[in-house]
Amino acid sequence: MISNSEIKLITGLHRKKYRDLHNLFIAEGEKLIKDLIDSGAQLTHFYTTKSIEPSDYADEVKSPVLITERQMQKISVQKNPSGWLAIFEQAKNTDLNQVPWVLALDDVQDPGNMGTILRLCDWFGITHVVCSEDTVEAYNPKVVQSSMGSIARVQVHYVLLDQWLATQTKPIFGAVLDGKSLTDIDWPKQGVLLMGNEGQGIRPQRAQFITDHLTISGAPERGAESLNVAMATGILLHQWHLNQ
Amino acid sequence: MISNSEIKLITGLHRKKYRDLHNLFIAEGEKLIKDLIDSGAQLTHFYTTKSIEPSDYADEVKSPVLITERQMQKISVQKNPSGWLAIFEQAKNTDLNQVPWVLALDDVQDPGNMGTILRLCDWFGITHVVCSEDTVEAYNPKVVQSSMGSIARVQVHYVLLDQWLATQTKPIFGAVLDGKSLTDIDWPKQGVLLMGNEGQGIRPQRAQFITDHLTISGAPERGAESLNVAMATGILLHQWHLNQ
Repeated sequence: MISNSEIKLITGLHRKKYRDLHNLFIAEGEKLIKDLIDSGAQLTHFYTTKSIEPSDYADEVKSPVLITERQMQKISVQKNPSGWLAIFEQAKNTDLNQVPWVLALDDVQDPGNMGTILRLCDWFGITHVVCSEDTVEAYNPKVVQSSMGSIARVQVHYVLLDQWLATQTKPIFGAVLDGKSLTDIDWPKQGVLLMGNEGQGIRPQRAQFITDHLTISGAPERGAESLNVAMATGILLHQWHLNQ
Repeated sequence: MISNSEIKLITGLHRKKYRDLHNLFIAEGEKLIKDLIDSGAQLTHFYTTKSIEPSDYADEVKSPVLITERQMQKISVQKNPSGWLAIFEQAKNTDLNQVPWVLALDDVQDPGNMGTILRLCDWFGITHVVCSEDTVEAYNPKVVQSSMGSIARVQVHYVLLDQWLATQTKPIFGAVLDGKSLTDIDWPKQGVLLMGNEGQGIRPQRAQFITDHLTISGAPERGAESLNVAMATGILLHQWHLNQ
């Protein structure tokens, strides 16, 4: 059973405005929902079109409500719904200043890239990501899906990035096209790693705060013009992780 | 002007069977087509729905033929055609044995992963990729699109991978879950880097040939279960490149 007011709430959550207002987000797919629950994300609603054994979801609070395919179609963000949809509370962020290393994103736009970056942070042990206000929203359903549960384990902060960078006392490592090779880098115990927009890179008003310019070198005769921002983030975080 | 027999040829090329038969492949998008031409790929047909200045394509052989939107819709692989479509000859592969380092793929299935891997090879200077016969076809239109032109600069060989690995005298580095950390690896001057399928990894009948087992270590308390095969390839090729 799903009420009309629940349907209205959930279809509202398809839009950022209402996700912000209610501090909730949508996740779809049985595996993703289980992973979010296991990671401590606060579940508020849980629906399925599948018939399940009572023993599968013994804890009543976390047991899905059976709804029709038609109702699922209404509340789902996906064209072909998986049959599993849940609503979770957005995490309350803890204080950033306690964290030795932070990843900062200047205007990353693609939800798939954002999800992949959150998954990389989770893998390499970065717990906090700071984003410029125009970076894609972390609770965008496409980000949630591609983060594969990492959204529950990595905290994402939206800030006025120029101001935030200006107040940092840690070194700021920026990925640029003409920086130092990674073999020449000493990674300190604390710092910020700054990555830029897919097409534009890091904008000048943020780039001015970079203390250490990094470049991922390729073959001299290479044809590929650039690495995708998620790929570059993966390579840099791996290198950082090896030197921690 | 496009003839009915050309339309028939091109719609045939949507299928692997006819790509193999004719040794041709489809590329869509103005930038990609230009990049392939610049990389020396042999153009056989070129169509556009856009009105162009004669000076844009001065070389008559490489000048696109104007067709209608309706015709483009017929020949395009894409739901929303870009308005630019070209046919190229598949590259003739040169001898593998002359190459110091080869990337080998065991059953990589996702066209986007394959395209990204070709782009990474192009970036880091790997010129030859060896694939198991069940690996996604490199001339699949989705691979061509996501390789962003790298398909013209990286040679892809389909082989009976068990047999091919068995005949190698070079060390075979395999990405597995319980191998050595990358900091402990000495990369020799010649070798094979073997990557596995998205879900299954490297299959046992291929894994038996691995001489050096590699693992990308993450944070001990990480939540993310694994890295995507394209991301893992990027991280490993970067590490390899740093040590060349």
